[in-house]
Amino acid sequence: MSKPEINAKPGTLEIVSTMTLNAPRELVFRAYTDPALIPQWLGPRNLTTTIDKLDARSGGQWRYVHRDAEGNIYAFHGVFHEVTAPERIIQTFEWEGMPGHVQLETAVFEDLGGRTRVVSQSVFQSVEDRDGMMSSGMEVGVNEGYERMTELLAALMTA
Amino acid sequence: MSKPEINAKPGTLEIVSTMTLNAPRELVFRAYTDPALIPQWLGPRNLTTTIDKLDARSGGQWRYVHRDAEGNIYAFHGVFHEVTAPERIIQTFEWEGMPGHVQLETAVFEDLGGRTRVVSQSVFQSVEDRDGMMSSGMEVGVNEGYERMTELLAALMTA
Repeated sequence: MSKPEINAKPGTLEIVSTMTLNAPRELVFRAYTDPALIPQWLGPRNLTTTIDKLDARSGGQWRYVHRDAEGNIYAFHGVFHEVTAPERIIQTFEWEGMPGHVQLETAVFEDLGGRTRVVSQSVFQSVEDRDGMMSSGMEVGVNEGYERMTELLAALMTA
Repeated sequence: MSKPEINAKPGTLEIVSTMTLNAPRELVFRAYTDPALIPQWLGPRNLTTTIDKLDARSGGQWRYVHRDAEGNIYAFHGVFHEVTAPERIIQTFEWEGMPGHVQLETAVFEDLGGRTRVVSQSVFQSVEDRDGMMSSGMEVGVNEGYERMTELLAALMTA
């Protein structure tokens, strides 16, 4: 299992992360859009995730809430510009702690024949917002999310 | 009447346009969100605009169609991430001729005391998409849109 590759060229507005998963594309896409599966992999292990809203279709809305052991809450929401199963999701993303600071996220699911490459791009409104995301512990979330996703997919495939 | 300022630093993912209008912020905001007013100013003069869908609230969807004299059609759609009257609109934007190529647009309306400054930022998924927008005649659309907006606001204020 290789780690996700996170690419954030200095001074630009984007972050691109790439990961390869040992599961068919339909299953990976389901893990991204099924409200029963998302809390099982999204984010770092020390947070629990609750799906408040998830209407995974073009024009739908989403909102989820992370909670840590101390009861602190981190909520996020956005709208789905496009959901095209099992190929592509384009959505907005906002951490409610910084209203008005929004990202455009594009996830592309590439079929590698039984394996799947997910390329996720986030574009930000400013370099400051982008750098803030990079220094917020995003890398831990992406790496642990990848580990948890790998475990979840393995469990789903042997179920 | 000064022209809008359009700023697109080479090699970046963004375009920022700034314009100042001789009208109160509430009225300018209305011109951006009222389906009866949008066709009267949006885009260049040689295109007619039809509003197919406009649900100008956070989570709503929009779609409009430009038509030229030859009957060619250019359709656009997106979702509203945030509509906060009369201050801010954050939305996605896609020209249907290039599916999957999406922009995040943020318009901020600044109250100058009877006048209004509108700062509109578009961030793109790639520099190629950004440059494509710049060479698509965007500048004509912005400048003529500004002229038409100025005329519309003057008419609304003397009505």
